[in-house]
Amino acid sequence: MKFSHKVQYYETDKMQITHHSNYIRFMEEARSSFLENVGYSYKRMEEENIVSPVIDVHAKFVKSTTYGDVIDINVGVKDLTPAVVTIGYTMYVDGEIVCVGESKHCFLKEGRPTAIKKVNMGLYEMFLKYKEEKL
Amino acid sequence: MKFSHKVQYYETDKMQITHHSNYIRFMEEARSSFLENVGYSYKRMEEENIVSPVIDVHAKFVKSTTYGDVIDINVGVKDLTPAVVTIGYTMYVDGEIVCVGESKHCFLKEGRPTAIKKVNMGLYEMFLKYKEEKL
Amino acid sequence: MKFSHKVQYYETDKMQITHHSNYIRFMEEARSSFLENVGYSYKRMEEENIVSPVIDVHAKFVKSTTYGDVIDINVGVKDLTPAVVTIGYTMYVDGEIVCVGESKHCFLKEGRPTAIKKVNMGLYEMFLKYKEEKL
Amino acid sequence: MKFSHKVQYYETDKMQITHHSNYIRFMEEARSSFLENVGYSYKRMEEENIVSPVIDVHAKFVKSTTYGDVIDINVGVKDLTPAVVTIGYTMYVDGEIVCVGESKHCFLKEGRPTAIKKVNMGLYEMFLKYKEEKL
Repeated sequence: MKFSHKVQYYETDKMQITHHSNYIRFMEEARSSFLENVGYSYKRMEEENIVSPVIDVHAKFVKSTTYGDVIDINVGVKDLTPAVVTIGYTMYVDGEIVCVGESKHCFLKEGRPTAIKKVNMGLYEMFLKYKEEKL
Repeated sequence: MKFSHKVQYYETDKMQITHHSNYIRFMEEARSSFLENVGYSYKRMEEENIVSPVIDVHAKFVKSTTYGDVIDINVGVKDLTPAVVTIGYTMYVDGEIVCVGESKHCFLKEGRPTAIKKVNMGLYEMFLKYKEEKL
Repeated sequence: MKFSHKVQYYETDKMQITHHSNYIRFMEEARSSFLENVGYSYKRMEEENIVSPVIDVHAKFVKSTTYGDVIDINVGVKDLTPAVVTIGYTMYVDGEIVCVGESKHCFLKEGRPTAIKKVNMGLYEMFLKYKEEKL
Repeated sequence: MKFSHKVQYYETDKMQITHHSNYIRFMEEARSSFLENVGYSYKRMEEENIVSPVIDVHAKFVKSTTYGDVIDINVGVKDLTPAVVTIGYTMYVDGEIVCVGESKHCFLKEGRPTAIKKVNMGLYEMFLKYKEEKL
């Protein structure tokens, strides 16, 4: 699934490029948009008491970007185990890869890690469906 | 009361100076430290169900700062009415003024704006005491 | 001129609302978009060696917003003197005002404050034209 | 080497914990402090035209932190090849691990990736010395 972010002035740094920490935020934006598009917005999750913290984040920076660049982000499900979903992100500017990232998320029920299936079968099946898709 | 913040790389922007939005955050840091030092930390306020949103913020930028600069912040009570406290900030680098700011805060009880005295007499008296001090 | 910003998760704070410092960033986003739309993008300014630092920023917070809210921002020229342009912002969610802000900008030529007309007559005339418009 | 960061209110999010993207910034703060302490501040690097972009960043979140927590960060050299240095970070609150991270950095000379030894032998030897140390 596709998402775009236009780099803002406040996201650049003294090296005159996008500060690397912001790509972690772009990943959250893309993930949030992805979940909303497939019908599982964070808001719905919160209403259903699904708490899903980030337990791991990784980004590889291939090419710098800067103010005004439009970053196109391909977001999808990279891996799925009973307890953890891995979301993958490939970011492009003008068709060239600038950053590749992934984030891992577990699911809590009453504060304890729980299998996704047990938390919400519909959410599990959605992740499974998107896992098949080419990122 | 005094507080210091060392400018981080991620707080600079493409103009190679501290991004102006960050001074609003330095003001929060200084205010938080001020309240903690006088015994009314945000944590204590939260425990006592005192909710105090920012209703107005203003900053005047006199001189730019950049990565590595240590900003010394003088923080104090600039004005106090029954409903609103105004906190003032003067920021220096090496004794020269770089930014002057202020923030206004109201106090809520059960979600409604309430006189500070009614919310917490001790807090009101503390603000009154620091109002006398030269900023 | 109109601009929209969707509040991201990373822009919220422990009070479960949009952190107040982010509105200063939304103002920059709206200003950047406004300048781009009228043909004076920051990029063009940089190419023409126009440096225009923020010298003053003010925001009044009327109503809190949170994750997922779409903030519509009306941006325009509020005031114009030979040396300083004041940009005004009115922010709405679902038609209700949430924040009113303004930022002041001066113009530098070879590092010294200079009348806007002297820096760039086209830019001055554009500001003058938009000053007439209702914000 | 040790470094501390006190979590600020603006670093928390709607889940009432420190937003995960901020740990990447804490890593930069710790790295910056580490380099300053061993005599290779970013400022000195910039003066010597050493450009060292982040090419990879990874963080594993073990335990959430929140406003007011003091995060103690152990920072050191985890790995060193001719072209890439890996900086490692272990973060604690009250002696308990909250986050483990690492960042990889290459070195550019006239815009091209270059062996660290060729860029600056003193920097290479400093990294080598700290590689021996237990993180």
